[in-house]
Amino acid sequence: MTDEMPFTGEPVDSHEAIMRATFYALQEHGYAGLSIQRIADEADLSKSTFYHHFDGKDDLLLSFLEFILEEFDRVFQLETSDDPAADLRTFFAIVLGQYDFCEEIPAVEEFLEAYVELRAQAVRNAEYRAKFTETDEAFTERISALIEMGIERGVFAETDPDRTAQFLMSTLDGVILQNSTRNDSPQSAMYDAIDDYIENTLLAE
Amino acid sequence: MTDEMPFTGEPVDSHEAIMRATFYALQEHGYAGLSIQRIADEADLSKSTFYHHFDGKDDLLLSFLEFILEEFDRVFQLETSDDPAADLRTFFAIVLGQYDFCEEIPAVEEFLEAYVELRAQAVRNAEYRAKFTETDEAFTERISALIEMGIERGVFAETDPDRTAQFLMSTLDGVILQNSTRNDSPQSAMYDAIDDYIENTLLAE
Repeated sequence: MTDEMPFTGEPVDSHEAIMRATFYALQEHGYAGLSIQRIADEADLSKSTFYHHFDGKDDLLLSFLEFILEEFDRVFQLETSDDPAADLRTFFAIVLGQYDFCEEIPAVEEFLEAYVELRAQAVRNAEYRAKFTETDEAFTERISALIEMGIERGVFAETDPDRTAQFLMSTLDGVILQNSTRNDSPQSAMYDAIDDYIENTLLAE
Repeated sequence: MTDEMPFTGEPVDSHEAIMRATFYALQEHGYAGLSIQRIADEADLSKSTFYHHFDGKDDLLLSFLEFILEEFDRVFQLETSDDPAADLRTFFAIVLGQYDFCEEIPAVEEFLEAYVELRAQAVRNAEYRAKFTETDEAFTERISALIEMGIERGVFAETDPDRTAQFLMSTLDGVILQNSTRNDSPQSAMYDAIDDYIENTLLAE
């Protein structure tokens, strides 16, 4: 599905079928309600085929987090322009499930809720903790690279790209946490705030 | 304990003893390992005294979140100066457990981890969701009031106080989530980033 949006078209192999089934099972049942049986049913595979690929639920979910990062990179590549400020907005919109193509993926919000539940597992599970350290770092590097490009081209004012990227990544993780655990929806106000930040803090005078 | 730091000195009544026991039990055992028996033991009270105050674990924890907000307000009042920029830094430091007096409270980090686990409950529990909506809003209002004061006094540049407060509250929630679910400790880099933000974005030229 190289040119396609995530979770559309036919899965190319059983690994991708399982990843996709995990996505939908997480949306529907959350972390606690996720079972190998449900994923096998959703992927239309036998449990033995599943166990050919994965040792169990945690092994699957660690692979799934990797898959999400790869999918993000693939889609972000397709959507980048040559404008660092626009790309930064695209980055946030894709992560928060607010980008145009996200309308084709049902219930992104429910997926972000499952992401928060998964992430809370990392408090007491060292493997999850290592994985989230890695994926947060990867995302932060993407943001840092965009800021660095902006500075080199004179579009952004001089700033420490890593520190600024870490700051923005905290904001992004925070709004995902808030959106999944509050009755209001801080996401749209957040976009305005990010625009303000790009406008008033990042852009060169 | 009106003038004292949180969780120091003698609790004034059994409600406060239970709140304090909850704090320590959450630090030690996390959300999943929290039991009424453990809290009763920690508070040196019988289970029947406990049930005189609370219906059960969820009722207790919702009360506890309220208590934390009240304690925060009380301590923040004691520590505020007349300088909005300094007060904003103090606000962040107290929430993140990095303020001077926090050294007197053991294992603030473990408490913030339990906070993340509690918060993840809000994904599927409407009562927790309502409570976190309320406490996030209360904290955001405190930040907004500081920014408004700064603008009125000409210390901060003109900005939308509510939007800026929501942005900073997302960052704060994000760094709490990151710190509890990653192997690195983004908190100190975060302080530098917040200082940058105050310096370059909030302060009037």
